[in-house]
Amino acid sequence: MNSKPNAIVAQSGGPTAVINSSACGVIQESLKSGKIGRVFGATNGILGVLGEDLFDISAEKPETIEALKQTPAAAIGSCRYKLKSLEESKADFERILDVFKAHNIRYFFYAGGNDSMDTADKVNKLAADMGYELVCMGIPKTVDNDLAFTDHCPGYPSVAKYVVTCAAEAGRDTEALYTTDTCTILEVMGRNAGWIAAATGLAATCPEDAPHLIYMPEAPFSFDKFVSDAKEVLKQLGRVFIVAGEGLKDKKGQYVTADAGAFAKDSFGHVQLGGVADMLKAVIEKEVGIKARFNKLGTNQRSAMHFASLTDVNEAYMCGRMAVKYAMEGENGKMVTLVREKGPEYRCTTGLAGLSDVANGEKKVPKEFINDNGNHITDAMRDYVRPLVQGEAPITIGENGLPVFMRFERKPLEKKLPEYKL
Amino acid sequence: MNSKPNAIVAQSGGPTAVINSSACGVIQESLKSGKIGRVFGATNGILGVLGEDLFDISAEKPETIEALKQTPAAAIGSCRYKLKSLEESKADFERILDVFKAHNIRYFFYAGGNDSMDTADKVNKLAADMGYELVCMGIPKTVDNDLAFTDHCPGYPSVAKYVVTCAAEAGRDTEALYTTDTCTILEVMGRNAGWIAAATGLAATCPEDAPHLIYMPEAPFSFDKFVSDAKEVLKQLGRVFIVAGEGLKDKKGQYVTADAGAFAKDSFGHVQLGGVADMLKAVIEKEVGIKARFNKLGTNQRSAMHFASLTDVNEAYMCGRMAVKYAMEGENGKMVTLVREKGPEYRCTTGLAGLSDVANGEKKVPKEFINDNGNHITDAMRDYVRPLVQGEAPITIGENGLPVFMRFERKPLEKKLPEYKL
Repeated sequence: MNSKPNAIVAQSGGPTAVINSSACGVIQESLKSGKIGRVFGATNGILGVLGEDLFDISAEKPETIEALKQTPAAAIGSCRYKLKSLEESKADFERILDVFKAHNIRYFFYAGGNDSMDTADKVNKLAADMGYELVCMGIPKTVDNDLAFTDHCPGYPSVAKYVVTCAAEAGRDTEALYTTDTCTILEVMGRNAGWIAAATGLAATCPEDAPHLIYMPEAPFSFDKFVSDAKEVLKQLGRVFIVAGEGLKDKKGQYVTADAGAFAKDSFGHVQLGGVADMLKAVIEKEVGIKARFNKLGTNQRSAMHFASLTDVNEAYMCGRMAVKYAMEGENGKMVTLVREKGPEYRCTTGLAGLSDVANGEKKVPKEFINDNGNHITDAMRDYVRPLVQGEAPITIGENGLPVFMRFERKPLEKKLPEYKL
Repeated sequence: MNSKPNAIVAQSGGPTAVINSSACGVIQESLKSGKIGRVFGATNGILGVLGEDLFDISAEKPETIEALKQTPAAAIGSCRYKLKSLEESKADFERILDVFKAHNIRYFFYAGGNDSMDTADKVNKLAADMGYELVCMGIPKTVDNDLAFTDHCPGYPSVAKYVVTCAAEAGRDTEALYTTDTCTILEVMGRNAGWIAAATGLAATCPEDAPHLIYMPEAPFSFDKFVSDAKEVLKQLGRVFIVAGEGLKDKKGQYVTADAGAFAKDSFGHVQLGGVADMLKAVIEKEVGIKARFNKLGTNQRSAMHFASLTDVNEAYMCGRMAVKYAMEGENGKMVTLVREKGPEYRCTTGLAGLSDVANGEKKVPKEFINDNGNHITDAMRDYVRPLVQGEAPITIGENGLPVFMRFERKPLEKKLPEYKL
């Protein structure tokens, strides 16, 4: 029996192409540290902790762990379970510590967005209050790129590389067939921040190039302006290629569309958006009188391992490794940040930010990255995103001609506690 | 002034990742033949011929022509203009021959689907009737893969490689986040044939793998069956990943959905489909009571040069070259076909089929490629599609981190005829 303390690694929220690279960094660095006994995976994030659904990642084959770097989505399993305040979700937080105690878990590495950093922060505070020695470290993860205190978020560069390429490619399709299919609308993710939409602007290197118009939640959306923008491009080029972030808002800050279905809010209470492109297509057909079509990349944009950014894979791995290194150096209650060093060459190192600071922050696309018309990006945005999309992440092609992904053997840990009802 | 006869190359219908590879083959082989003077591009397919909007492709830089192999969509320009019978569209057909005569065009290379083969066939017949020496050769092109007489159609292998990879990737996303985002529906192209949907089945190598259910237009669709299929998978796996072809039909042969908008039919009179995935998402949420989301790859699937099939690029190029070679050998009124040679190793050569035969044929996914339940594929389909998706087409990455695409300089030919009103 190993008497060294154990670590847990968990993944939360929407998957990305590189959250598994971060997990790989945590696992490999933990095993190398000499101070950590076993590394457990929490099946489906905090749900796995609450349910004591853990498995021994350190017992997995080293090549399986290495192959995390080439596997999209969240191989350990993710969730959207939101814990509230320490008072409101007291039972949950206590249960988390009970599970940690039962398995001698003294390190909690949590990859996620600001809701996850909030959870890690609260677990950490409760542990301190109860005198349970625990180190909680956050690893940034969100395709939305909206975390504060970090230059960018692992996951974003890969989705950026993919969507800008998709815009360039589908833009050529519209250019070829503009005599009938005159308008194409590409809908991309981004509930509150337009970072993904903004990235597509990198494809526009001359007036011919798509996208011709980009709409982001940060620039108040007006239907009249949208129609006149489209007509203007049509006059110049005879076609128009439009990128729309899913979370477009009017000048009152209201979403211009919201899915009115039965599942219109996710478990974090966020409004589920959809149908922006579908709606804009209808507006174009009615108000401009041309045929429009839309592409909605959906979850394919955040899982596009086959064309992920090498920069992103490397940085995500670095964030995972550094979370462990910082913990070994005595840091606690922090999220690893990405720091863009000054200088003509892109160079990225890591730093730290307090979990609670990150939890309460949000980083939107700044004004200077959006053009005055509110319908495209500036060179400042191009300079920001260009280094991030560099390099193609290696993939292994199997005999079916498709990228090969790993799966854990997932040997479950014996449960030591009574069942817990959520 | 060159006294050799000239050739025209034109592209028609929906673009693909490799129709430009075919054009490259036509152009390079024409220039090499010694029997062809100049090669003209018809801007936007037959519209360019009718409008005498031609440009001199042989005057373009050789590296521009070579870069066609790495550029998606239709670089010469495409259209959906449909010519009717020789009687009904007599003026159009005569105009085509007038333009050919005015520019001493004796070779017409047309890449497209069966409507385009029909046009080429009729132009050819009229020329023969009028005693104008003309060679018309067709080059197969359609992501739908529904042309008869050819083992498969250039364009299809690339869309197959891309959608099956997207299914594998987004499948991992659903697998990671199934506790909230339990069902994902991927909508793919295929108005009448389910070849694209069927290709995604290659990703399913074990019960865990997506897609779990595949619906094709060839298998009559029933909402009740769909709901019970989904429930069954949910019972087994706790999640379900579904692929739906856009052209699903009920047992009476009626589309289960049709866009009722102002542009519900394209210029070929085909019903424009859309909203299949959106509709199925609503059905799942209502009838099964779980959250569902959908991805609609749209034109991104047919323009995904960044992960195109090398086999496809090579074969498309071969079809273009062979169209010229066959023409030089005295063939006329034929479309180049792809012939899968017998034997354990995949080997593909070319053959010929009559333009009118191709125009009137259609190849659907055969019964033996679809499972008995009508909701997935068989090993016969896997064996058919596996060789097609092999190899990754080379791309050149520019300084923005994106694939580099070419554009023609497009030096217009001087017009010799009066304007023609369509």
